[in-house]
Amino acid sequence: MSVLVDNIGELVTNDDGEGLLGLRRDVAVVIEGERIAWIGPAAQAPAADQRIDAGGNAVLPGFVDSHAHLVFAGDRAAEFGARMAGEPYTGGGIRTTVAATRAATDDELRRNAGRLVAEALRQGTTTIEIKSGYGLNVDDEARSLRIARELSDETTFLGAHVVPAGSDPGEYVDLVRGPMLEACAPYAKWVDVFCDRGAFDEDQTRAILTAGKQKGLSLRVHANQLIEGPGVRLAVELGAASADHCTHLSSADVDALVNSETVATLLPGAEFSTRSPYPDARRLIDAGVKVALATDCNPGSSYTSSMPFCIALAVRDMRMTPAEAVHAATAGGARALRRDDIGRLRVGARADLIVLDAPSHLHLAYRPGVPLIKQVLHSGVPSNHPAAAPNSTEGPLS
Amino acid sequence: MSVLVDNIGELVTNDDGEGLLGLRRDVAVVIEGERIAWIGPAAQAPAADQRIDAGGNAVLPGFVDSHAHLVFAGDRAAEFGARMAGEPYTGGGIRTTVAATRAATDDELRRNAGRLVAEALRQGTTTIEIKSGYGLNVDDEARSLRIARELSDETTFLGAHVVPAGSDPGEYVDLVRGPMLEACAPYAKWVDVFCDRGAFDEDQTRAILTAGKQKGLSLRVHANQLIEGPGVRLAVELGAASADHCTHLSSADVDALVNSETVATLLPGAEFSTRSPYPDARRLIDAGVKVALATDCNPGSSYTSSMPFCIALAVRDMRMTPAEAVHAATAGGARALRRDDIGRLRVGARADLIVLDAPSHLHLAYRPGVPLIKQVLHSGVPSNHPAAAPNSTEGPLS
Repeated sequence: MSVLVDNIGELVTNDDGEGLLGLRRDVAVVIEGERIAWIGPAAQAPAADQRIDAGGNAVLPGFVDSHAHLVFAGDRAAEFGARMAGEPYTGGGIRTTVAATRAATDDELRRNAGRLVAEALRQGTTTIEIKSGYGLNVDDEARSLRIARELSDETTFLGAHVVPAGSDPGEYVDLVRGPMLEACAPYAKWVDVFCDRGAFDEDQTRAILTAGKQKGLSLRVHANQLIEGPGVRLAVELGAASADHCTHLSSADVDALVNSETVATLLPGAEFSTRSPYPDARRLIDAGVKVALATDCNPGSSYTSSMPFCIALAVRDMRMTPAEAVHAATAGGARALRRDDIGRLRVGARADLIVLDAPSHLHLAYRPGVPLIKQVLHSGVPSNHPAAAPNSTEGPLS
Repeated sequence: MSVLVDNIGELVTNDDGEGLLGLRRDVAVVIEGERIAWIGPAAQAPAADQRIDAGGNAVLPGFVDSHAHLVFAGDRAAEFGARMAGEPYTGGGIRTTVAATRAATDDELRRNAGRLVAEALRQGTTTIEIKSGYGLNVDDEARSLRIARELSDETTFLGAHVVPAGSDPGEYVDLVRGPMLEACAPYAKWVDVFCDRGAFDEDQTRAILTAGKQKGLSLRVHANQLIEGPGVRLAVELGAASADHCTHLSSADVDALVNSETVATLLPGAEFSTRSPYPDARRLIDAGVKVALATDCNPGSSYTSSMPFCIALAVRDMRMTPAEAVHAATAGGARALRRDDIGRLRVGARADLIVLDAPSHLHLAYRPGVPLIKQVLHSGVPSNHPAAAPNSTEGPLS
């Protein structure tokens, strides 16, 4: 099965082309099965079984959301309302979601996560990382990851999200890096630790990440969201793919990131929803740090699944250019997941494409809040079929 | 034709019920034709020809967007990009859109405005005000309003948007309040003036509004967006339904609004897209001023059609509670248009309803950027039919 996508107003390749986004015009794309088989001048496009007319609109790589917490039950709308009335975000509300998640059936967790994956796909997200972290015991962490693995190949063991109520921190760290890791590793690609005030300190973080690495997992770190701390430097030292949040950074943190392969993943939805100061994206980008944008979708501090919304915030409130923001939401996310088959449109890449309802990638920031995703192809399959309607669940996003 | 809407998780009535939003639970709504015929306990709901199962979700009045500029051609994505790179917003770019609008055919203008009305409807907006203001000569202002009137009953003559390039300001004011008003009044309900730095001063504004009033039009004013000035006080003095923007207010301005029937219409999309400080909504609300939220949808300073986005900004960045923001986007907008048949759900009101993809109105702020509008009824007619798909145009919103 081959598909020709033509009448493209602007193609964002993140590869050969103009500027950071590798923009190309007057080109067409041919997909064979799950992969991109050809990109070239529209006039020379080969024949294909099907045709998608992009209507003169922009075509982009599907968004890569490299940071999301989707396996949970319940919501925290009331906590959100209280915070908007002035209460600070401390991360303590995570325990509310832990109680609801433990009480939920597998099917409830699967339905809720599947609903969010489908919602993200409708908004152009063709790859989404999914973390555990609301189970916080061996069985509930393991089942969270089993369910996450049904929906994505990018699964992350985050037993070290917070110390559960009533547990001794030292004993909990031993549990996480021992039996919990043992039970979870078969379903996880990544291990992650929330290294911050009120969560895990440097030694605890190092112990858990090191154990995870020995178990064959790759590393990512929740770092420096609430205060300056050791998280970012530890992420770099241990070779983590990404240090996520990066809201409070010292000069040493920035230097460490510059001289590393660790991506700084910025999550402006969290600052939006906790009414906190945004990370200084300009400082990072101007220093040469590799940056990704992700949603941090979770019921406590950032209940958005919208990558376009994060792009608009990144431009308005973090002073990224529209091109930088779009790049960070696609190629940046792919790099944060150490993937080279997604986040770019080139021959051999997975055929994850978005057709916008707009002529340019600029409109993702220029038209904030407007649903601009007209069509999504995921592994070559158009998802604007009936199954993409609200409340349906989709197959896995990986 | 009667329709029963039941299985409602939360009904926002803006009428009898709990709190500012008049919240009711365990109720059903019956629609007869274009109007609400019955609201009462779900167990006592009468039979109807059709049933809409709200699925336990929240049901709200349709949004009332009381400030939008939809009759124009072209876009200003490049200007937006430049502004995000640091150039200030001066309003001067309006002239770019004027040139494109004058050069467009009627059909081009009609298609573009219709596209935006349809886009707004998909996002829950069942009433949208539409201004002229990109013609700036007699013929182009009059045709802008003829086209606007095809799409909405809430049409506003804004010949006094800016003095067109090359015109003498005094002569232009005489044109606006003379022949242009004469040609436009048949298609307009409202007259509006941009009273601000670089636009029209107090005397000019007074002269135009007074002439419009004598012609039978009701008044609204673009006031105090860029600097403190006479706009708000003039709006109150002349009995305008709304003073729009209200970003820079003196204590005298606030006092004037408190003791008036003039609504302060806040347009946070404009501050978002021009990276300007937001209006102080708390100061206004705490003083007792009546507040509305609207999009200011226009290609220069706020190219969003999304009332949910404006609600999320109002909560995050203007410190309105979710209830205040939802009220301002529904009942507030209705008041800013001096309408009592919309913006509330009560017997006799127009059957404009939104079914959210969420259990509570809180989610409009709690889930920013996520398309949460599951179904819209406009004058009793469900709009989730094929005609509501992207790029279609809809019937008039009034």
